[in-house]
Amino acid sequence: MSNPARPTLALAMGDPSGVSLELAAKLLADDEARGFADYIVIGDSRALAEGAQIAGVTLDLPAWKPGDTDLDLSKGAVVADLGHLDQAGITRGQSSVAGGNFAMANFRTVLRMGAKGAADAATFTPFNKHAMRLAYPPYVDEIEIISQETGATTGGREFNILPNLWNARVTSHVPLSGVAALITKEAVLGGIRLTNASMKKVGFDKPRIAVAALNPHAGDGGNFGHEDDNEIVPAVEAARAEGIICDGPFPSDTVFLRAKRGDYDVVQTMYHDQGQIAMKLMGFELGVTLIGGYDFPVCTPAHGTAYDIAGQGIANLGATREAMRVATQMATAKVVSSTERARLLNESIALPENSAAA
Amino acid sequence: MSNPARPTLALAMGDPSGVSLELAAKLLADDEARGFADYIVIGDSRALAEGAQIAGVTLDLPAWKPGDTDLDLSKGAVVADLGHLDQAGITRGQSSVAGGNFAMANFRTVLRMGAKGAADAATFTPFNKHAMRLAYPPYVDEIEIISQETGATTGGREFNILPNLWNARVTSHVPLSGVAALITKEAVLGGIRLTNASMKKVGFDKPRIAVAALNPHAGDGGNFGHEDDNEIVPAVEAARAEGIICDGPFPSDTVFLRAKRGDYDVVQTMYHDQGQIAMKLMGFELGVTLIGGYDFPVCTPAHGTAYDIAGQGIANLGATREAMRVATQMATAKVVSSTERARLLNESIALPENSAAA
Repeated sequence: MSNPARPTLALAMGDPSGVSLELAAKLLADDEARGFADYIVIGDSRALAEGAQIAGVTLDLPAWKPGDTDLDLSKGAVVADLGHLDQAGITRGQSSVAGGNFAMANFRTVLRMGAKGAADAATFTPFNKHAMRLAYPPYVDEIEIISQETGATTGGREFNILPNLWNARVTSHVPLSGVAALITKEAVLGGIRLTNASMKKVGFDKPRIAVAALNPHAGDGGNFGHEDDNEIVPAVEAARAEGIICDGPFPSDTVFLRAKRGDYDVVQTMYHDQGQIAMKLMGFELGVTLIGGYDFPVCTPAHGTAYDIAGQGIANLGATREAMRVATQMATAKVVSSTERARLLNESIALPENSAAA
Repeated sequence: MSNPARPTLALAMGDPSGVSLELAAKLLADDEARGFADYIVIGDSRALAEGAQIAGVTLDLPAWKPGDTDLDLSKGAVVADLGHLDQAGITRGQSSVAGGNFAMANFRTVLRMGAKGAADAATFTPFNKHAMRLAYPPYVDEIEIISQETGATTGGREFNILPNLWNARVTSHVPLSGVAALITKEAVLGGIRLTNASMKKVGFDKPRIAVAALNPHAGDGGNFGHEDDNEIVPAVEAARAEGIICDGPFPSDTVFLRAKRGDYDVVQTMYHDQGQIAMKLMGFELGVTLIGGYDFPVCTPAHGTAYDIAGQGIANLGATREAMRVATQMATAKVVSSTERARLLNESIALPENSAAA
């Protein structure tokens, strides 16, 4: 089943109180998802068994344990059983420090795997932000954790992906009052370049980029702000001079109408909500989040842990499968021997000091 | 046909190079729209005849001329023929100073009519902003013109109205960099109060108001800005203490999902694009713009002059009819004699000094 030409995805089991366990189980029982990649599932065999029971699927995956010197992907998937699920500390539908510790350890591990080459992409089923904070109080967002684990200090940009439309941002988790100062020609051009390069990797020959304006009516010739004329226009011109297909800045209340009707493949937005308002209205459940700009892609479904439906087995696999597809397309498949992969995985394990298995 | 209980709408003919003339003609030939209000159409008989020809409708409305001492609304509509259309200066599908002068004079006239009581509401078919600037270079937006003509210095707020959802804003045409400083408890509370009062006027017994957050993730407990916690939360609490039905602040990328599924009647947004992105994605063509907070309502379809389809007779009347319906619902119908109405209209005429008829 394993094929050197197809990528290996490290999949972190997410928050164990939500739908993340059942989604992981459903994914590993899904012929389509199993068809395009090999999976190293990072978590705990008990958690995956619970997910399989909820999902109503039968899994018979080989298990790998810390210390094992061989990691056999001949069946297309392996569970790396870190044995760290603190079952007593977890209540379905509630965030907890135990749940946060579990998800955080798995997430740190897949990131190290990506950085070390134990896998070609890092993926995860949903986290709960509150639980992550219980486990790691300074938690802000995934990009910060990726920086910690990979040493990267730049490059992290979040993309939101719907079946026919991408969204990229120049700024993300900053107060609205601080956005305008960050909209420089360099930042916008950097964003456009990364969007262009990322989309080429997944098969867009010449992605068509629509650049959103910052201010209402694209600044209305300076009446409602100058950043559109002074920063974004020069960035678009510079990108076009490099051969990138991009237009704008378009007023942000019409740019998504243009893209939705098929004129563009992606909207490059200037701030978090500018894109998120539109993308969530256009089909939240199917969305994928890609964090790009690193040596390996990081992908997850855009939806959250859905505590309200956890344990019912009704969580829709669609976005998770699409997240794995994007990770597969973005990844550069490397040939790694089973012993080398085991060695790298052993080096990647990131259990917290207070975990049950530590 | 005229009935003291039903309101009289002053309807300004908009930009004569776009679809505004044909929409005015279609409206005046529309039984439904004629059924709920009387209309005083401000413009030029030649312009209305042109609109009727394009629209393929037959109109036989009495005309009123400046200086006439009686204004007879017994047929339910009258054309106030100001004779100021500069036909030579107008090319279909192009903005022009002649078109701007025509629309601006009509707009100023209906505003004065509202202020003086010659009509119960001011309405207009679409303007073209560029043409308005050619006619009046300092033009920023309608609110500024309303202030000039009514003397009002506060209160003007724009509402966007779709069939099942309203949108109100705390700030509008300001640079994004200046938004956060304007989001004070007082401003948000004032916006909520006006939304509540305006919607009660059109028949919502207890409008359910969803208040959008300013910052991503509603500030995320202060990580991404403090305005949500420090200004918007107290405003929502104060509004609730007054008996207003309102919740929030909700992250702006999910607040429209809540409203769309029926949980709320209106979203109170903090800035222009926050609401416009969502509303335009949800059904631009049917939208109505209401400018509220004055003694009389000002209403117009949310779409523009549609230069690309002008003259073809295909412009959809839907939004214009809905704009008149909202104006009717918001208006307080006053009993005015036909001679008094004529006197007030004569006092309201606002022809520019450089107009053909001046």
